[in-house]
Amino acid sequence: MPNTNFEQKLSQFKTYLKKMKSYDEAIGLMYWDMRTGAPKKGIAIRSEVVGVLSGELFRMSVSDEMGEMLGYLSEPEQLNKLSHIEQRSVTECKKDYDRSKRIPAQKYEEYVVLTSQAESVWEEAKEEADFAKFRPYLEKIVATNLEFIDLWGYKGHKYNTLLDMYEPDMTVAKLDQVFGALREKVVPLLAAIQDSPHQPNTGFLKQTFNKEQQKTFSLFILKQMGYDFEAGRLDETVHPFATGLNPGDVRITTRYVLNDVNSALFGTIHEGGHALYEQNISPDLVGTPLATGASMGIHESQSRFWENMIGRSRPFWNRYYGDLQKAFPSQLDAVSVDDYYKATNEVRPSLIRTEADELTYNLHIMVRYEIEKELFSEQVRVSDLPEVWNQKYRDYLGIAPTNNGEGVLQDVHWAGGSFGYFPSYALGNMYAAQIRRTIRQELPDFDSLVEGGNLLPIRDWLTEKIYRHGKSLTPAEIITQVTGEELNPDYLVQYFNDKFGELYKL
Amino acid sequence: MPNTNFEQKLSQFKTYLKKMKSYDEAIGLMYWDMRTGAPKKGIAIRSEVVGVLSGELFRMSVSDEMGEMLGYLSEPEQLNKLSHIEQRSVTECKKDYDRSKRIPAQKYEEYVVLTSQAESVWEEAKEEADFAKFRPYLEKIVATNLEFIDLWGYKGHKYNTLLDMYEPDMTVAKLDQVFGALREKVVPLLAAIQDSPHQPNTGFLKQTFNKEQQKTFSLFILKQMGYDFEAGRLDETVHPFATGLNPGDVRITTRYVLNDVNSALFGTIHEGGHALYEQNISPDLVGTPLATGASMGIHESQSRFWENMIGRSRPFWNRYYGDLQKAFPSQLDAVSVDDYYKATNEVRPSLIRTEADELTYNLHIMVRYEIEKELFSEQVRVSDLPEVWNQKYRDYLGIAPTNNGEGVLQDVHWAGGSFGYFPSYALGNMYAAQIRRTIRQELPDFDSLVEGGNLLPIRDWLTEKIYRHGKSLTPAEIITQVTGEELNPDYLVQYFNDKFGELYKL
Repeated sequence: MPNTNFEQKLSQFKTYLKKMKSYDEAIGLMYWDMRTGAPKKGIAIRSEVVGVLSGELFRMSVSDEMGEMLGYLSEPEQLNKLSHIEQRSVTECKKDYDRSKRIPAQKYEEYVVLTSQAESVWEEAKEEADFAKFRPYLEKIVATNLEFIDLWGYKGHKYNTLLDMYEPDMTVAKLDQVFGALREKVVPLLAAIQDSPHQPNTGFLKQTFNKEQQKTFSLFILKQMGYDFEAGRLDETVHPFATGLNPGDVRITTRYVLNDVNSALFGTIHEGGHALYEQNISPDLVGTPLATGASMGIHESQSRFWENMIGRSRPFWNRYYGDLQKAFPSQLDAVSVDDYYKATNEVRPSLIRTEADELTYNLHIMVRYEIEKELFSEQVRVSDLPEVWNQKYRDYLGIAPTNNGEGVLQDVHWAGGSFGYFPSYALGNMYAAQIRRTIRQELPDFDSLVEGGNLLPIRDWLTEKIYRHGKSLTPAEIITQVTGEELNPDYLVQYFNDKFGELYKL
Repeated sequence: MPNTNFEQKLSQFKTYLKKMKSYDEAIGLMYWDMRTGAPKKGIAIRSEVVGVLSGELFRMSVSDEMGEMLGYLSEPEQLNKLSHIEQRSVTECKKDYDRSKRIPAQKYEEYVVLTSQAESVWEEAKEEADFAKFRPYLEKIVATNLEFIDLWGYKGHKYNTLLDMYEPDMTVAKLDQVFGALREKVVPLLAAIQDSPHQPNTGFLKQTFNKEQQKTFSLFILKQMGYDFEAGRLDETVHPFATGLNPGDVRITTRYVLNDVNSALFGTIHEGGHALYEQNISPDLVGTPLATGASMGIHESQSRFWENMIGRSRPFWNRYYGDLQKAFPSQLDAVSVDDYYKATNEVRPSLIRTEADELTYNLHIMVRYEIEKELFSEQVRVSDLPEVWNQKYRDYLGIAPTNNGEGVLQDVHWAGGSFGYFPSYALGNMYAAQIRRTIRQELPDFDSLVEGGNLLPIRDWLTEKIYRHGKSLTPAEIITQVTGEELNPDYLVQYFNDKFGELYKL
């Protein structure tokens, strides 16, 4: 009875996935704990514990048992009998399995050790602005990734294989096109902004803002966004993040900077956007590898949509500025909502990506994208990176770092081997603008909703269109299904022109 | 080359133990998280995750691989080549392995489900004071334990096998002797106390005490005890506990009761005592099953030593009462240290074990011990428990509950199948008094140390004698090595006579 065998194998597969997800959740909690409040003397042993469980999880993903289940279930005869969610679970696991199986276990373990060492060397090198210290590690990491790409295989450009890890099916050809179109418009817009006589006054943002008040206001805004505090919590960390342990437990963190009221506020909205996504994934996906975002780019589209396109919008501050003034009367009573809105949207080329404004942020990403692409086509060597970096900053942003600490060493990503990750941030901005255009068509009173503090219909629309699907659709499927067309950078350009044209009276 | 095989097997065993400890730590963190602040909508999935990892840990403890390693390493020829820690690790694992292997897997799984259901039924039954509701579950739990005892085997009394799970080598014969001796002295002492005209005034303990101030004071006392905040943290929960994830991460929780200043304070000192034990286990034991307390009784001896024999002592309050007054001036400025000390040590028979004073607490335990003993010698049936319970409360404490909620249903232990656990609490008191006598001989200025707020030499003495050894010594070895004799209830009797004789002017 082949049916019985099929049902048995499917049931075995689902139990196995649930077990893997359990390890994933336990590991996620341990990371959250280490970053939020674990006592420091326990960290060394805790890191080993995380290592043991991560190793087990990896072994499960490449086990003979997994191989056998995938071999059976991915035969067309069986695959056709599966539901959509089951099919995608199979293909998702098979992709991981095939990738991992091609790397010799020992090679992979050496690489894990290498990146772990590289991260601590990078920390020192950044502190000392000493690229030479970090260079040998980065060279080995790039070389190992090139070896891995040869084992994994690639289509067209070697870098495509890395991009696909974070943004399934994304390619150099596509990114060249969309980043090219974006740059072509952003660079002249930036020049016009810099030439505008209408520069905002931003001094009042840098007063002292009591931490408890900042926290109360952040919690208030999260509540307004529809973040469910029965399915999450807000804590403090040096580097803010969101982590979805399961849809009923999606935690976010923020950092309160006493002399910058906007840092925690927009950080919280950003992580809150990630969290709304994870909280609203359909219960059907729980226990499968699909209970997460469709891609890093789609995930980032949600954090940036909430942070920039809602949080940094005029209707939003028309509604909430009075509350912010009430929280900080002595600092803001003399500041008008218009002045606050303008200051909060100041555009100014800067050296550090994470502190960049909404417009120039994309240029920081393009610099990194160009460099990664050239590293993996072997047109650029690691030893040339400082010079290449500085030149590209001059080309894209018109400024250059005075040392490598604020230049090529500023991000941790390369130390961890995360090549192909950076484009997600700019893709997120483009997806967000494209989704923004559709939601404004489908909810024609969008601005009034925001201006009325009525954000839940927006969250619900995004849940229906995006969040609930988790990873059961690809990024391309999501964006096409929601907006009726594939990724198109024009919407972001239009959004920038409208917003900054008005702000800087261009 | 047999030596190579030996070394390989030993190394394999150590890696395996470390892996098991890793699961244990992850599970411990998940429990801590669920009890301190995990969002409630994530609890259902989290419970499944804990179930998956606990199941894996259990399978490891009874795996063929474990069986093979233990079979080899516990042969005298190999065992003799092992260090003391290695030997004890082998015998500890073998004890678990042999026990677990004798229970058919399906039988055990049914039992886990049964106790999990029983715990939630018990909660309702206690609320409604309805023993009939809980009875069928308790009958099954007792019957299953009797079956298990037959499979495990027993020497002398069937209950011995259950006692041994919490207090290795403890027997009914020994407990009958020490509890008998204790009861013989405590009951007349209690009668004398009740007849004394010198009853303390306790009204001032029940004012309103600000939570933040309570917390600050609790943290201050923990610091004084030498609790290491870089290897732990204090959180709030409904039911306070201490959990040692590893010696560098030992967390405690407490509960602040606004109208009772002593609740959080002594609760914190109690859990702090458990935590000092776990924080000071030798690093040599990390990654082995010996990195925990010697037994429940020895662990409890440390929480009670700190809570009662230091925390409720006159020298302690001579030193710290001024600080407590400073924290609560309007409540305590008119109360003398003598009055506070007396109120804090009030003896009064009561119905609820967890709220009992230091003296009568032991009588609550004896009631439970007598009942458990008779349940497993099948002299008493579950259906008779309410009546038996009430009669024993009359015999031991001179009072009886008016309903089963404040009687036989008050504790969760039986719902979870923890028979044999209760005696640990009274054993802890006896061990503590016996250790107290030795430490006062070896640190002759003991009272001056406490009165001077100089508690670290006391912690260090306990570390040297007890804490660092973890579970590498048995309770009998610990108590004999530290005090020069085996468990002797006379020291607790003497301590009670001295303390309460003075307090009640007997």
